[in-house]
Amino acid sequence: MTSLAIVRTVSDLRRAVAEYRAAGRTIGMVPTMGALHEGHVSLVKGALDRGDVPVASIFVNPTQFGPNEDFSAYPRGEADDFAKLEAAHCRIVFAPSVEEMYPGPQLTTVTVGGSITEGLCGPFRPGHFQGVATVVCKLLMMATPDRGYFGEKDYQQLQVLKRMARDLNLPVEIVGMPTIREPDGLAMSSRNRYLSAEERQRALAMYRALVTAANAVRDGRTACATAEAEATQSLLKAGFDKVEYFSVVDANTLAPLAKVTGPARIAAAARLGRTRLIDNIAV
Amino acid sequence: MTSLAIVRTVSDLRRAVAEYRAAGRTIGMVPTMGALHEGHVSLVKGALDRGDVPVASIFVNPTQFGPNEDFSAYPRGEADDFAKLEAAHCRIVFAPSVEEMYPGPQLTTVTVGGSITEGLCGPFRPGHFQGVATVVCKLLMMATPDRGYFGEKDYQQLQVLKRMARDLNLPVEIVGMPTIREPDGLAMSSRNRYLSAEERQRALAMYRALVTAANAVRDGRTACATAEAEATQSLLKAGFDKVEYFSVVDANTLAPLAKVTGPARIAAAARLGRTRLIDNIAV
Repeated sequence: MTSLAIVRTVSDLRRAVAEYRAAGRTIGMVPTMGALHEGHVSLVKGALDRGDVPVASIFVNPTQFGPNEDFSAYPRGEADDFAKLEAAHCRIVFAPSVEEMYPGPQLTTVTVGGSITEGLCGPFRPGHFQGVATVVCKLLMMATPDRGYFGEKDYQQLQVLKRMARDLNLPVEIVGMPTIREPDGLAMSSRNRYLSAEERQRALAMYRALVTAANAVRDGRTACATAEAEATQSLLKAGFDKVEYFSVVDANTLAPLAKVTGPARIAAAARLGRTRLIDNIAV
Repeated sequence: MTSLAIVRTVSDLRRAVAEYRAAGRTIGMVPTMGALHEGHVSLVKGALDRGDVPVASIFVNPTQFGPNEDFSAYPRGEADDFAKLEAAHCRIVFAPSVEEMYPGPQLTTVTVGGSITEGLCGPFRPGHFQGVATVVCKLLMMATPDRGYFGEKDYQQLQVLKRMARDLNLPVEIVGMPTIREPDGLAMSSRNRYLSAEERQRALAMYRALVTAANAVRDGRTACATAEAEATQSLLKAGFDKVEYFSVVDANTLAPLAKVTGPARIAAAARLGRTRLIDNIAV
């Protein structure tokens, strides 16, 4: 089997995975919502680099979108996605319908509490991380991979999923992969497609603000609150319409920091016209 | 390997299970809180009957007990439990410490909502089914069995776990096994050990009330509310101190029924002195 197998049902997915398992192969899962870009491709490559058979999924999960969010507008383009996966040497893609994923009411939810979900996107997207944790738990249980690959671009999501896997003793390793950026620094995101040419230029300010803030707070030089306020001002000046948060947090617990004394992350979310952009950077 | 292997850590459990897997065997898990009786033994037998290697666990899970419940008083007797499991031809018993099960704060919870948890024990034991679903999910992910065996004695718990496995697509079949009763009809329960000789006699009234009610409501002959009220009165007259509920419910959704027209279950919980007893019966 050298070409991409496209499966639509859980039973076909399990059958396709079992064939590779029977041949002694390990499985690396790459859950996505489609509208694939080089960030997603790097996750497939990450699986190949570790010797895993890459299994991608494409599912725009309704339960992780709020009522006023962009579920219906979210970019979809299956043929293009399949071509990118095939070119990346992905072996299986699971592209289920909503009915296949949720054949009846989903009464069971997986919730990660504590500081990991309390801050950053948590208050702005109520129910989002519960939707993510639940659907990723389902996908992992469907494909039973050895490893699941997720981008650091969605850093809070990555920490939620790592904690879920650890707390529920899932027999899966959650692997975080570096954010892939455009040459000018903008983090790749399916939502970048929403941006007008002018907004695309303004969007750059987010990465620049993150780099500036990371240099400012490193080794406790500047208080986090000072750097956060300056970054927020710089984003507004650059043409962002609203800054939801710009926060220096502990790299593991995501608890807000006053001073940087250990591993930290700076994460930001801001609105540019109708588009909500997020990004983050290690300190 | 013909004797019982006693394992205390997740890694030892996984290693012991992997040996049987490598030999082509399927695994049947029997999660328990110890204080084993013939009901538990029947679950081990159920696994053997289906050709599974029986793997039991003994863990008195603190997160499924309320603050005023009997966690510290719950009967514990490991040596006796191990002897019963060995005699029943169980192959592995996982008996972890609280620290092994919960090495850090358990921030992730599994919740089953809807009618399955709204009624019966739900309102009387807030947090109980979340504690049960979360710890059983953990245990199933630790041992990765083909099947998990649970008694119908805890009928609501069984429905919660079936729903959890279905909703989260766990690659595990949840098998319900018939309640094992004493010769006089009392459902076997570890909590029966709490009963004085006199209470033990009075306890019989619960099974009798269930049988009487099942005959009354069958085929819609008597309205459920009438049978429920009569049963409640009979339990109080027999010396029960408080009847928490005595309810005719849909066998699958556990939603209360006014008339029996399809598969139904009658479930009851009542207090006898300091002991809380539950039982249920098919209609």
